[in-house]
Amino acid sequence: MNACNIGEDALIRRLAKLVPGRADVVAGIGDDCAVVRTGRRDSFDWLLKSDPVIEGVHFTPTAPAEAIGHKALGRVLSDIAAMGGEPMWVLIDLVAPASVPVKRIEGMYRGLAKLARRHGVAIVGGDTARGKTLELHIFAVGRIPRGRAVLRSGGKPGDSLYVTGSLGGSGQGRHLRFEPRLVEGQWLAAGKWATAMMDVSDGLATDLRRLIAASGTGAVIEAARVPVSPAAKRLLDRRAPLVHALSDGEDFELLFAVPRRKKTAFEAAWSRQFRLACTRIGELTEKSGRLELETRGIRRVLNVRGYEHFT
Amino acid sequence: MNACNIGEDALIRRLAKLVPGRADVVAGIGDDCAVVRTGRRDSFDWLLKSDPVIEGVHFTPTAPAEAIGHKALGRVLSDIAAMGGEPMWVLIDLVAPASVPVKRIEGMYRGLAKLARRHGVAIVGGDTARGKTLELHIFAVGRIPRGRAVLRSGGKPGDSLYVTGSLGGSGQGRHLRFEPRLVEGQWLAAGKWATAMMDVSDGLATDLRRLIAASGTGAVIEAARVPVSPAAKRLLDRRAPLVHALSDGEDFELLFAVPRRKKTAFEAAWSRQFRLACTRIGELTEKSGRLELETRGIRRVLNVRGYEHFT
Repeated sequence: MNACNIGEDALIRRLAKLVPGRADVVAGIGDDCAVVRTGRRDSFDWLLKSDPVIEGVHFTPTAPAEAIGHKALGRVLSDIAAMGGEPMWVLIDLVAPASVPVKRIEGMYRGLAKLARRHGVAIVGGDTARGKTLELHIFAVGRIPRGRAVLRSGGKPGDSLYVTGSLGGSGQGRHLRFEPRLVEGQWLAAGKWATAMMDVSDGLATDLRRLIAASGTGAVIEAARVPVSPAAKRLLDRRAPLVHALSDGEDFELLFAVPRRKKTAFEAAWSRQFRLACTRIGELTEKSGRLELETRGIRRVLNVRGYEHFT
Repeated sequence: MNACNIGEDALIRRLAKLVPGRADVVAGIGDDCAVVRTGRRDSFDWLLKSDPVIEGVHFTPTAPAEAIGHKALGRVLSDIAAMGGEPMWVLIDLVAPASVPVKRIEGMYRGLAKLARRHGVAIVGGDTARGKTLELHIFAVGRIPRGRAVLRSGGKPGDSLYVTGSLGGSGQGRHLRFEPRLVEGQWLAAGKWATAMMDVSDGLATDLRRLIAASGTGAVIEAARVPVSPAAKRLLDRRAPLVHALSDGEDFELLFAVPRRKKTAFEAAWSRQFRLACTRIGELTEKSGRLELETRGIRRVLNVRGYEHFT
């Protein structure tokens, strides 16, 4: 067995068995961020996250330098948003072939710095090394009021499922320009609206499977409710816009569950607070691990998969 | 100008100018770790560090998997040791070509986990991605009692200079097996012995230049005092063992300064505490930025350089 024919999730499960934990780890491998608790009297928990962008995987050689930097930091901030957290400090590991112009590297850091400034994030260190491929590895520390991190595992059958913004066709440009949903994530956590939350990075179908696996529930998506992005509708390939919305990935929108009894109050509060769309796309069910798509009243098991590394 | 003909330090200086800071950053880019302070009443400062190991740069394709994992984590723990800190939580970004056997990846994590367990470190997350080259990027969070982190910048003219262990020839195997000097670093910080400290990762000459640049001093190394490793003495190439000790890098020993008036007390205390060698190799001088080597009473400016990426 090599890294080619094992799925990313399966690989991570195998590796997670090998490594030690500590009593102060509230949530470890398997959520958007790790959550650690530093002291009995501290008023904050700490969120830890790392994520790479790699040329040829996450961006093409022709991508603008500033957009690469924006994406690299944005991906990690999106994960902190998905816990409801506030990002604080960032380290950057740069890997670059010797032929890369310094101007391109500076452009990447400029894009990164612009997004960091907008969210009050400090870039405090990192490392530079020569390698065959241009890569940025971003490590971020965030914080959240103690006990308030929204995990993937808190969903209950009957909870309504929501996504922010619209999904699909991110490869047309949005994957380099998206805005991490930090304000929205913090608001969802502070108001105790969300029982479970994650960001949509590998496609709604794949990511929702992860959420229901963590929550021990099933889920049904109502096909007609999925907010398909204009970019996905414009794509003239052989796949329907809905399939793009379910599987493209790199949307970096928030996917979360809200208790059914709070549905009306939540939707009203969201509308008062934000102009960003927030769409109810379905609900969590009791059929553990089963992801269904409902089309014209008929439910079928959903087999569309999103993007997964190593498959 | 491309990444090939700018030095690593010069590149980092240029990038550091582009990125934002925060008021809670005690020490940012340019020390072994970043130091951040989270609250007015907190009893600890936090240390943040990231560092990669890359096949073809930090290890060869034939290196044993467990040794690669050991080295990857060991490098970062060595930096935390160099501030006097205690490592707590670690994230790992794995980049792997699809052809790498899962058994090899598991071996790397096993080596990493073994070292983590020995120092009470939890591995709490990370990411896996496909790429052309096998790489591990390690991100670690450590802590140190508030205000006690030993920076590179605290050295004063007249301070005695020490290194732990012996230097040179690490490429013969030690670079895959070294033990991060965590206990020693914590002891040096807790006892307020060291005014400035760093780990020797790019060779004594290069790293000491960084320490004196940060401290605004010069330094003189007494050639006869440098503890040359047995491995460096066995090397039968055209470079003298001393040159290896000054320039090879990847020693992961501690380099630190102690006020001259504490010299006797320090050396006695060290001997009582540790069996590990600690050698006085010279002292800090007033000649800002000037690194000298003293051989048979004659001082000359030292031009030997250690390993630097991008040159």
